[in-house]
Amino acid sequence: MREELLEICETGNAEEQEILRLAMQAIKQKRERNSAFLSGFMGLTGQFLDERTYQFIVPITPFMHNPLGVVHGGILATLIDSTMGSLVNRSLPENQFGVTTELKVNYLRSSREGTLRSEATILHRGQTLIVLQGSVFDERDRLLAHGTATFMILHK
Amino acid sequence: MREELLEICETGNAEEQEILRLAMQAIKQKRERNSAFLSGFMGLTGQFLDERTYQFIVPITPFMHNPLGVVHGGILATLIDSTMGSLVNRSLPENQFGVTTELKVNYLRSSREGTLRSEATILHRGQTLIVLQGSVFDERDRLLAHGTATFMILHK
Amino acid sequence: MREELLEICETGNAEEQEILRLAMQAIKQKRERNSAFLSGFMGLTGQFLDERTYQFIVPITPFMHNPLGVVHGGILATLIDSTMGSLVNRSLPENQFGVTTELKVNYLRSSREGTLRSEATILHRGQTLIVLQGSVFDERDRLLAHGTATFMILHK
Amino acid sequence: MREELLEICETGNAEEQEILRLAMQAIKQKRERNSAFLSGFMGLTGQFLDERTYQFIVPITPFMHNPLGVVHGGILATLIDSTMGSLVNRSLPENQFGVTTELKVNYLRSSREGTLRSEATILHRGQTLIVLQGSVFDERDRLLAHGTATFMILHK
Repeated sequence: MREELLEICETGNAEEQEILRLAMQAIKQKRERNSAFLSGFMGLTGQFLDERTYQFIVPITPFMHNPLGVVHGGILATLIDSTMGSLVNRSLPENQFGVTTELKVNYLRSSREGTLRSEATILHRGQTLIVLQGSVFDERDRLLAHGTATFMILHK
Repeated sequence: MREELLEICETGNAEEQEILRLAMQAIKQKRERNSAFLSGFMGLTGQFLDERTYQFIVPITPFMHNPLGVVHGGILATLIDSTMGSLVNRSLPENQFGVTTELKVNYLRSSREGTLRSEATILHRGQTLIVLQGSVFDERDRLLAHGTATFMILHK
Repeated sequence: MREELLEICETGNAEEQEILRLAMQAIKQKRERNSAFLSGFMGLTGQFLDERTYQFIVPITPFMHNPLGVVHGGILATLIDSTMGSLVNRSLPENQFGVTTELKVNYLRSSREGTLRSEATILHRGQTLIVLQGSVFDERDRLLAHGTATFMILHK
Repeated sequence: MREELLEICETGNAEEQEILRLAMQAIKQKRERNSAFLSGFMGLTGQFLDERTYQFIVPITPFMHNPLGVVHGGILATLIDSTMGSLVNRSLPENQFGVTTELKVNYLRSSREGTLRSEATILHRGQTLIVLQGSVFDERDRLLAHGTATFMILHK
């Protein structure tokens, strides 16, 4: 593996080197805060906008592209799910966590480059289930995807 | 970057080395058949079961894990979307292709390891829209996730 | 009200008389087995096909038509939801019941007349949630609509 | 039929008389503005709040109740679908109309009585597809149900 890695590292194109860079970023984020590798590849770091709204801002990289060169539908689903999951888990007490039971995404526009902004809001918080909506915007504030999902609250 | 890569390559744990191996696999699949990097990381290669059913079989790797150590919901969504997309695009004439307009996934069970089998079937083929369902099973044939989606047919 | 009713009863067109007939059917079903009026209007009566599959067969009536003269999307959603709900409630012990927490329907074809067959199957039965799929066919066995839903199990 | 109708009209309970009243309302709305009977039973009449938002306000009647005495999930789906459909059709040119291709509803709370307010907004208007979201509130402004849907634009 060493030889191959070095070869890509030295002679690979920009996109390929970017993938290696993201792999290291993912490994680092996993070491430092036990992020999913997938989150590390996507560069996910979020913040609260207000008590009910959580936000991720991430750069579009070749890792996110589908074969048509636009952000993969699976990445947008992951982004929405992760933003919602972060909001849910940050809003639950220590001994509880949430898991996605269903997620629906409507894909509205495609995007090639720039920055994605993902926001999630709680629509309803029940005893057992939390229902959320999430939106992903491009850097010109156009809505790219909209999702709704249900999380189930579990006890550790 | 070179030094860091070599360090992980030589002293990283098994999981981290696996991530580097998958990065190279993704780069290779991109070079050879213009796969999305994401598909290469997931090791997606599919086949027809019959005229209306397409199948992917993929190994669960650390790349797929969420922080709880089970397959990430975003990965299951990507897997269902990719299986459906492969089916749609292989069943359309040369000058057409399909894009996902909406996808809903129900998450039923979690899985840590082994193999995932993803199957997609066409429910309805219209002039403009194709509606599909997809299922992901673990290696004991238990249903992990079920999805339905709509693809829109576009002309190149 | 009496006069108006008698007038429609005697001089109304076939469709209008059918609506009055269905109103009486709904009132009767409510009296006899505490059906929802809506179920009585739709003439819902179901049966098990096997342990995991429940079926409704209902005639298309003017009550079900949208302004275009085909079965209303809301009626198809109601039919799928009701078939699933019947299956869920017949499969739970006496002291439990299920409520719909989410329902997604894909509309595939329209239908004007004849008979609708609605079938629901359980995809996954958890401790708290039951996930189902449902299909509605016309009398030529063409798929008109497909749905997936989650029911939550509650205790009486 | 005449005898039965008269009997319910004279000796039926309040709920049953209400059903007959709604049947006549539905017949009248059908005659006057070619409403679906289902819309007439529900008393649907809407208005624009602004260019992108349409609103229905309807009273909860026994027609809407499920066997538990709360508004039927199918009615909420119909309400959301109808509000969206009205918005879509009022916003399209004369020679076009929209049909629902998919609808997902999350059910958040139940409601027994009072008034329902249903609002729909366009999330994205494409050449072929329009994606909307809709919400139903009770008279204390609590969110009862939330939906997203796709309409396809057809030419007359």
